[in-house]
Amino acid sequence: MGQRSIGIGMVGYKFMGKAHSHAYRDLPFYFDSDPYPVMRAVAGRNADSVAEAAQRMGWSGYETDWRRLLERDDIDVIDICTPNVNHAEIAIAAAEAGKHILCEKPLAMNVREARRVLEAARKAGIIHMICHNYRFAPAVQLAKKLIEEGKLGRIYHIRATYLQDWLADPMSPYSWRMSKEVSGSGTHGDLASHSIDLARFLVGEIRSVSGLMPTFVKERPTSDGTTMQVDVDDASLFMAKFACGAVGTFEATRYARGNRNGNRFEINGERGSLRWDMEKMNQLEVYFSDDPADLQGFRTISCTENSHPYGDKYWPAGHIIGYEHTFINLMHEFSQGIARGSNPEPNFEDGLRNQLVLEAVEESNASGRWIDVEEYE
Amino acid sequence: MGQRSIGIGMVGYKFMGKAHSHAYRDLPFYFDSDPYPVMRAVAGRNADSVAEAAQRMGWSGYETDWRRLLERDDIDVIDICTPNVNHAEIAIAAAEAGKHILCEKPLAMNVREARRVLEAARKAGIIHMICHNYRFAPAVQLAKKLIEEGKLGRIYHIRATYLQDWLADPMSPYSWRMSKEVSGSGTHGDLASHSIDLARFLVGEIRSVSGLMPTFVKERPTSDGTTMQVDVDDASLFMAKFACGAVGTFEATRYARGNRNGNRFEINGERGSLRWDMEKMNQLEVYFSDDPADLQGFRTISCTENSHPYGDKYWPAGHIIGYEHTFINLMHEFSQGIARGSNPEPNFEDGLRNQLVLEAVEESNASGRWIDVEEYE
Amino acid sequence: MGQRSIGIGMVGYKFMGKAHSHAYRDLPFYFDSDPYPVMRAVAGRNADSVAEAAQRMGWSGYETDWRRLLERDDIDVIDICTPNVNHAEIAIAAAEAGKHILCEKPLAMNVREARRVLEAARKAGIIHMICHNYRFAPAVQLAKKLIEEGKLGRIYHIRATYLQDWLADPMSPYSWRMSKEVSGSGTHGDLASHSIDLARFLVGEIRSVSGLMPTFVKERPTSDGTTMQVDVDDASLFMAKFACGAVGTFEATRYARGNRNGNRFEINGERGSLRWDMEKMNQLEVYFSDDPADLQGFRTISCTENSHPYGDKYWPAGHIIGYEHTFINLMHEFSQGIARGSNPEPNFEDGLRNQLVLEAVEESNASGRWIDVEEYE
Amino acid sequence: MGQRSIGIGMVGYKFMGKAHSHAYRDLPFYFDSDPYPVMRAVAGRNADSVAEAAQRMGWSGYETDWRRLLERDDIDVIDICTPNVNHAEIAIAAAEAGKHILCEKPLAMNVREARRVLEAARKAGIIHMICHNYRFAPAVQLAKKLIEEGKLGRIYHIRATYLQDWLADPMSPYSWRMSKEVSGSGTHGDLASHSIDLARFLVGEIRSVSGLMPTFVKERPTSDGTTMQVDVDDASLFMAKFACGAVGTFEATRYARGNRNGNRFEINGERGSLRWDMEKMNQLEVYFSDDPADLQGFRTISCTENSHPYGDKYWPAGHIIGYEHTFINLMHEFSQGIARGSNPEPNFEDGLRNQLVLEAVEESNASGRWIDVEEYE
Repeated sequence: MGQRSIGIGMVGYKFMGKAHSHAYRDLPFYFDSDPYPVMRAVAGRNADSVAEAAQRMGWSGYETDWRRLLERDDIDVIDICTPNVNHAEIAIAAAEAGKHILCEKPLAMNVREARRVLEAARKAGIIHMICHNYRFAPAVQLAKKLIEEGKLGRIYHIRATYLQDWLADPMSPYSWRMSKEVSGSGTHGDLASHSIDLARFLVGEIRSVSGLMPTFVKERPTSDGTTMQVDVDDASLFMAKFACGAVGTFEATRYARGNRNGNRFEINGERGSLRWDMEKMNQLEVYFSDDPADLQGFRTISCTENSHPYGDKYWPAGHIIGYEHTFINLMHEFSQGIARGSNPEPNFEDGLRNQLVLEAVEESNASGRWIDVEEYE
Repeated sequence: MGQRSIGIGMVGYKFMGKAHSHAYRDLPFYFDSDPYPVMRAVAGRNADSVAEAAQRMGWSGYETDWRRLLERDDIDVIDICTPNVNHAEIAIAAAEAGKHILCEKPLAMNVREARRVLEAARKAGIIHMICHNYRFAPAVQLAKKLIEEGKLGRIYHIRATYLQDWLADPMSPYSWRMSKEVSGSGTHGDLASHSIDLARFLVGEIRSVSGLMPTFVKERPTSDGTTMQVDVDDASLFMAKFACGAVGTFEATRYARGNRNGNRFEINGERGSLRWDMEKMNQLEVYFSDDPADLQGFRTISCTENSHPYGDKYWPAGHIIGYEHTFINLMHEFSQGIARGSNPEPNFEDGLRNQLVLEAVEESNASGRWIDVEEYE
Repeated sequence: MGQRSIGIGMVGYKFMGKAHSHAYRDLPFYFDSDPYPVMRAVAGRNADSVAEAAQRMGWSGYETDWRRLLERDDIDVIDICTPNVNHAEIAIAAAEAGKHILCEKPLAMNVREARRVLEAARKAGIIHMICHNYRFAPAVQLAKKLIEEGKLGRIYHIRATYLQDWLADPMSPYSWRMSKEVSGSGTHGDLASHSIDLARFLVGEIRSVSGLMPTFVKERPTSDGTTMQVDVDDASLFMAKFACGAVGTFEATRYARGNRNGNRFEINGERGSLRWDMEKMNQLEVYFSDDPADLQGFRTISCTENSHPYGDKYWPAGHIIGYEHTFINLMHEFSQGIARGSNPEPNFEDGLRNQLVLEAVEESNASGRWIDVEEYE
Repeated sequence: MGQRSIGIGMVGYKFMGKAHSHAYRDLPFYFDSDPYPVMRAVAGRNADSVAEAAQRMGWSGYETDWRRLLERDDIDVIDICTPNVNHAEIAIAAAEAGKHILCEKPLAMNVREARRVLEAARKAGIIHMICHNYRFAPAVQLAKKLIEEGKLGRIYHIRATYLQDWLADPMSPYSWRMSKEVSGSGTHGDLASHSIDLARFLVGEIRSVSGLMPTFVKERPTSDGTTMQVDVDDASLFMAKFACGAVGTFEATRYARGNRNGNRFEINGERGSLRWDMEKMNQLEVYFSDDPADLQGFRTISCTENSHPYGDKYWPAGHIIGYEHTFINLMHEFSQGIARGSNPEPNFEDGLRNQLVLEAVEESNASGRWIDVEEYE
């Protein structure tokens, strides 16, 4: 078929590693992506378990040191699925080795690190992308299109929540996710960063924030019968002012019983509104004030038509897709970016801008004041 | 039937006057309220139009000066449905005349006024109530019961929105509601005050707030072809810390297309969650984490059973009630307060506490800092 | 105001008597109905309880024999809220006495009786109406308007259900509603008749039917410790062919757990679809295939705008109304019919046509064959 | 890993061929299926297009005559994804060749053919399965579990609809799907057969039916400017009596605007109810009458927990799956059947029973009478 292949080396093989592997595997089935990914090797420290993972997920080989991936000529792309604490080091090394990079979010542990990663990537001239997969739900892409076409007019509001509930029980055990040293933050970098990316994508840049990052349960039991201190946020709430004049409310938490993966937003503009909920990810609710007075109401659009973004790649209308397809679509965009030699969005610049907002919220939480998001050109 | 009657005199006869009149009219039909209200007179300045209103709504008489109501022996209760700017004056005079008082929200234009009203009412020893009608939706009462019984455990979160959309068009004409002098505030006192009342009712007192009160459209056309400056908020957003340790996000606006009367909240606790939406006011959504692992989910309860609050007063289960019934239930509670000689809730103390929160948000908006809500004993 | 009054005499004062009384009481409050109803007297056999009901519900007087109502000159309208078995006798006598008649559904126990009632009403030249209140939900009126305007094009399908659940427990006690002699039928005349009325209103006449009327629990306990045989249907299912070429499925039951008053329909036409659910009665869901390909979806319209049927009579948009308002709207139409001297719809002719369908379904259930609905001119 | 492989040969590569191919591809990624499928060859008449399909979907080879697949030793399973008219011939030949068979629904063009297929499969002793994929949605599996555990008690009702809308426009062009000779039937075998399978799975065998199969548009345009007669049903409606005493209504159509893939059911039992909708396939709505009186309501369960059927195979709770996963789950069950040497469900016996119901409905439609479903042992 004349398509070019591109060799992938992935670091890390847990939840995100699974999602990425599956996407590489399925991409050529659904898309005529050129170049198409070839799953060369996955890296992990434990030989037995990385070998098992490689076989189960369809990687041709494995490495026990991620640096080995950088040395291989058959690998063009480094995909970073490790814990946050390792993102920057791997990304910088990969850039210096001339590899294209797909990095899981957040880009780094903090703004300083994120800047260094972006700088390295720019200097190397490689293609880079950050893995905010929710942008690639067809309904979110349709939302973007409607906003860009001016169908909503001037944007006034966004309210975005990302609600989970796995920590609502105060006796749930301690994990590394509750350690600032290992994770950087709690809910904030994990969930709020997704909402920030969606807001930036759809409404534009955030200029200033006022934040609140409570820790509800300050000590949790461990498996050995002792307890550990929690030093990260349990929830992250903030208000935001956007460059375009819109205002936003954001709320992310792991304490909202009954919400397993409640990544949602509502956007209100001069001429219409939009609503989306990841747990019903195929649907976009849309309201237009231009509809006749007695026929106005939110429409529930099943974004599964051929006319919808990515709609012609999967199944007939009404035959819904799921979480994993957001990654397949993302991998396609990454592939297209490599093909045309320009960075897709969101890339490391978006990763840095996201981190600037995260850090401003943290600073606001500490100071009790509104904080301007640092400008970045 | 041996019931006692109680004479009502009402001031003002627009939207709220209509809602109150209807409730007095329907109360004896649905409830065996003792005492039951007798609609003696409505007061308004324009003789023709108050006379017409009196006849249409079922008042026995009318007055063109509200002070006349205070002089009449056949009137036991003054019901204040005027614009906000007049609440305090009428309430204080009514208290001094020894009349029981039902006052529309907000209690006054500011905290200082609200304090004076409460003081006057206390001094007079009359029964007083403030008209936060949404508390009296059966679903909200059920929410209260579940929280009080501990079914949700410790409360972590409330997120409350009150979304309307009648100002989303920047060419919508100017009205007195956009004048600070006449209205005190815009969306803030009008809509956010309802959310504050629901939050105080269900979650408890608010200790501190960080607020943002944007004005999106600063000038609006008038009927005479000129324009007028808008000097009130178009939206009111704030974060709150509660005495109980919970945190909240609040958002009220008149710019959320497609939301006509979107008074909603979600509350998350240690053992469960609740959701309510005024536009589906008969329903309460409830989630319990104690349900078996594979059977957990939000239940949609139609709060129309005999076993539900006020459920035996109206129609068989599933035969829904509407907005106006919140007022009928409220009037019943007011009548019961009079019968037993103690203030129902919410009363003027709640009115003042609400105003303290409103004012703290305004101060926060002005200063860009978190503001402690003034303590009140 | 120059309006004329019209004296009402009502027979029966249980559930329907309560709903009708309330509607008379509220009608002048919401509508400038001319003539407006005056609640003269309610009739019932037990003096104490009818006296109590009269007082509670706001009737000026009462009678212990309904025939007395026919003799009174101050009574212009007889409103029949008795058990079905008495409808025909009272209606015929009322017509012969020259009274206008509002009759609860079904019009009679069977087609033969219904014909006699209609004949008597026609001969007397009085105004008559049958109380299919659900037609008067604003959302249903909007549905009618859209269909009449051709917004749906040719109609292909209606599927109508009326699901209740109060008999799902086989140990629920026996009542007179399970006796054919007293009630005529079970679910069939009680619930299916409402669906038939909505279908006739919206889609037109039904030509033939195939029906199934199961009795799931054939014997039920009584309060005295014995059991009684159930000889009516527990559920009523049928398929229908309409004069316009559409087909329909109908299902009414008292055995559908979780459905308290699930009166619902969906209509599919060449150019669009409609959905309605009584338990969310303010909403109409509407789909138009003329919408752009990527913006098609069911809109949820809150039928509470001024531009909606009856929308200007109640509250601002989004402030929902309930079950009882369907009766207020109906009483208004009845009043208008009297004013202009022509029968409103649905009237006794609709009552007869409804009964013709009911009887055809019963015959089909007995014979196991499709049955043509008898033609009626 | 010590797992055995099993060679697959597939006939046909359109919509169903794509769904099956994807499932084979993904099965080893998600499940430790033993044996796991190896995609050996796909068969189709046109060499170029079958070669292209093989490459795109991941088949090692292809054949231009399906009979060639039967001759190959490296192929253990024949998967039949052809038009209905070819199912029987291929299945019988495959059975005679000793291949296991997975056959798309319906099993054959009619009962007579279906019997022959089942007989051949039994005689050959091969493992067989029919591809009613919707059984394998986790929510449907949970429904099955709840019913089997008696959580709903005795079943009274099922109402099942399968609503699509791609023929609602009378000017939509003619296709072979509207030809009885090629397709056997229209909506009936295509959509109603799925509802029948779900009903049989969840409620049990159907004893008798009364059906109606209208053709709304009898002539359609072709691409060459002429028109063609439609001789299949546009919709299929029927009522059913089940062996267990329950009754059902079924409705399938291609004329229900706004419903792209509306495969839905509601089941009502003595102690509870269930609702499912394919377009929200991750959710099961469940109602229990044993819940406390004031806490009864349908729960919306997201069937994505580890504790749910197949829930541990995919993603964390709330990260939804889609249409294609029903096939992956089905392929796993097929693999397990092969491993243990006994037929999974649904198999060809289910295929035949399904066809018996389909044929009874057709006969009822022709005769206007209730028809007993032929018994089958």
